[in-house]
Amino acid sequence: MASKKASRRGFLKAGAAAAAMSAMQSAGAQAAVPQAQPQKSLKELVGYGERSHFVTSVRVPVVERPSPDQFGLIFHVLTPLQDQVGSITPSSLHFVGTHRGSIVPDFDPKDYRLMIHGMVDRPLEFTMDELKRFPSVSRVHFIECLGNHSRPEYTTVQQTHGLTSSSEWTGVPLSVLLKEVGVQKGAAWVVSEGSEEVKGAGSFRLAKAMDDCLVAYGQNGEPLRPQQGFPLRLLVPGFEGIYNTKWLRRIKVVDRYYMTYNDYGHIQKDEEIAALTFQWGPKSVITFPSGGQQLPGPGIYQLTGLAWSGGGAVRKVEVSTDGGQTWKEAEIRGAVHPKAHTRFGMNWKWDGQECVLQSRCIDELGQVQPTRAQLAQHFKVTPDYYKTHGVQGSDNMIQPWRVASDGSVHNAIA
Amino acid sequence: MASKKASRRGFLKAGAAAAAMSAMQSAGAQAAVPQAQPQKSLKELVGYGERSHFVTSVRVPVVERPSPDQFGLIFHVLTPLQDQVGSITPSSLHFVGTHRGSIVPDFDPKDYRLMIHGMVDRPLEFTMDELKRFPSVSRVHFIECLGNHSRPEYTTVQQTHGLTSSSEWTGVPLSVLLKEVGVQKGAAWVVSEGSEEVKGAGSFRLAKAMDDCLVAYGQNGEPLRPQQGFPLRLLVPGFEGIYNTKWLRRIKVVDRYYMTYNDYGHIQKDEEIAALTFQWGPKSVITFPSGGQQLPGPGIYQLTGLAWSGGGAVRKVEVSTDGGQTWKEAEIRGAVHPKAHTRFGMNWKWDGQECVLQSRCIDELGQVQPTRAQLAQHFKVTPDYYKTHGVQGSDNMIQPWRVASDGSVHNAIA
Repeated sequence: MASKKASRRGFLKAGAAAAAMSAMQSAGAQAAVPQAQPQKSLKELVGYGERSHFVTSVRVPVVERPSPDQFGLIFHVLTPLQDQVGSITPSSLHFVGTHRGSIVPDFDPKDYRLMIHGMVDRPLEFTMDELKRFPSVSRVHFIECLGNHSRPEYTTVQQTHGLTSSSEWTGVPLSVLLKEVGVQKGAAWVVSEGSEEVKGAGSFRLAKAMDDCLVAYGQNGEPLRPQQGFPLRLLVPGFEGIYNTKWLRRIKVVDRYYMTYNDYGHIQKDEEIAALTFQWGPKSVITFPSGGQQLPGPGIYQLTGLAWSGGGAVRKVEVSTDGGQTWKEAEIRGAVHPKAHTRFGMNWKWDGQECVLQSRCIDELGQVQPTRAQLAQHFKVTPDYYKTHGVQGSDNMIQPWRVASDGSVHNAIA
Repeated sequence: MASKKASRRGFLKAGAAAAAMSAMQSAGAQAAVPQAQPQKSLKELVGYGERSHFVTSVRVPVVERPSPDQFGLIFHVLTPLQDQVGSITPSSLHFVGTHRGSIVPDFDPKDYRLMIHGMVDRPLEFTMDELKRFPSVSRVHFIECLGNHSRPEYTTVQQTHGLTSSSEWTGVPLSVLLKEVGVQKGAAWVVSEGSEEVKGAGSFRLAKAMDDCLVAYGQNGEPLRPQQGFPLRLLVPGFEGIYNTKWLRRIKVVDRYYMTYNDYGHIQKDEEIAALTFQWGPKSVITFPSGGQQLPGPGIYQLTGLAWSGGGAVRKVEVSTDGGQTWKEAEIRGAVHPKAHTRFGMNWKWDGQECVLQSRCIDELGQVQPTRAQLAQHFKVTPDYYKTHGVQGSDNMIQPWRVASDGSVHNAIA
């Protein structure tokens, strides 16, 4: 029936080594023999399951900030994107970006309060129970830290792109709460404040607050994780990470932009640059093959990666296997949500020659992910700028990976 | 601006007790004071995060099977649906249904093999690495055990409905693998076999195998959890749980139905009953308010729950607050995927009088979730049958919850 077609596909013939067993009668003898699992606690067996001891994927600190316990002041850890499948980041592996007073606060939700005040008719303080009296919604969104960028000295996709993760968030639309308190005439901005020592504040326009922001208490079906702001954080979908205020305690409605301790040069002479530093552009990265990985030899592989955009849903992803000379559309291999990680993939036959792989995202606005040269032009710097500096504005440049003829994979951003 | 509208909404006026603070200048004094989190291991802080110690939601064993360590033979634990938000079940809280040899096998993925044989041109054995050479896809699907049904003596939604969970699964479409091995003329069924002592086999039609089944190695972004079949399980979307073979070791292509140790009366005289025991009908349940919960008093609440169907996507969910006399359409409050848990909700004003709440799911095929009487009629038993017996066929009957005038909530199935 399907044999000829299957033969033409030839996934295994072209590299993998599945054994054809023409005379097989019964598989009993060949199949792996199950072993009893090592002794597990009743908690694990019944209450709250754990992952296999064979699964060891972990977050790692960013290179320049090796440890969170050095004064507890700076704490950035990276999602292992190279090990992830699908589009949901496991909550235990969600990146963490916290600084300037980064000890994870430990709130008893019973005592927790969110205040909304400023230019409103009825300033209100909400308990967690009260927040749950309002209509909630669950949506999948990525969060990405402005600090996410590729440097030549970074070797893996965890290092170049690990400050982004995607979750199903549940919470009350901020618009619902703002209608409850009654926004006054003349109000134009909101300031959200967290609970760190420096309060982790951010200012953004009221129009965004009324659009798609969430006051979130749920993450992937559970309450927020402590490192993600338990019991309450703000979701400002598509905006850079710092706006997604953790341990959210206050929202103040105001009439102008408020500069906060968290401003990363948002006050810019160039309006275009200032605007771009709020919202992430279209972005993508190949997670396999990616830096530090090793291909066993020529053959057919599943090239795969993630794409996302602060501008909305991913419309398509293109992949180049020749250093950007030609591009081919990849398959979308999972759900597509606005402002969420989107899994893509394609069959890729590696002939054993050195080559450069890269992907680019095109979002629903028609925005195309730029090369480093294009991004430099946009920000009015030379491409060499990025060899020694971090990016100016959010870095959504195309990430090239070089596959050497020995199958090793390297960061080709330099 | 929005004040009059907000006032009319009056979520808080009607019961919750948010304090209006008209003269508030600064919230500093009132807001909760963050405490440093109790000492955490570096593993938790960096490598693999954990949930808050204030979050204590756990799975529990089914009432009749109180412990998994009693001979290790029967092991059913229930997802705490009453605590869940959104539509993704956290992997640590996914239900477990295992019996007849239920010790969780502990496979090293390096040694693992899947065999596909029987009426095929090229019987093949696949390693995990080889499987990952094939195109994969990620999809959200529920799994539900046939044992999921409401008995009058069950008090909570965890007990009545906790044998269903929903995850983002990642794997290779079974159709791709079947094309690779080449299905022969005359083949009509497949038998999948797991690794438990009794092999956990199931037979289903080749048409289903070629449709939407997955050979899954990923769950919510990570490798499968051990209790979910690490490193490999079958997903047979919409079919009862037993078909979703865990620790999948063999798939045999055959020409007829094979009876296995896992048959739960699939061999029936009545063809319609036999067919229905494969695929779940449209189903839903209110998770708040649900049995065992306590409303603090009259007021406005967010009634919420989950809906799903083996027949495809949920088209709409209706809710009755008067024991089924009248129905009102609920809001869908999250993503809608075929054969996946779908979150619904609605504003509900409780006046303090006794009432009966229930929901019903209508799926994309137009199928309507039945009452107990309708299900009994369908299966040709009296409604009283369900007072003393489990269901015949899959139980997708409407679940009523009675809210007493003191705010306590009770199972009203009896």
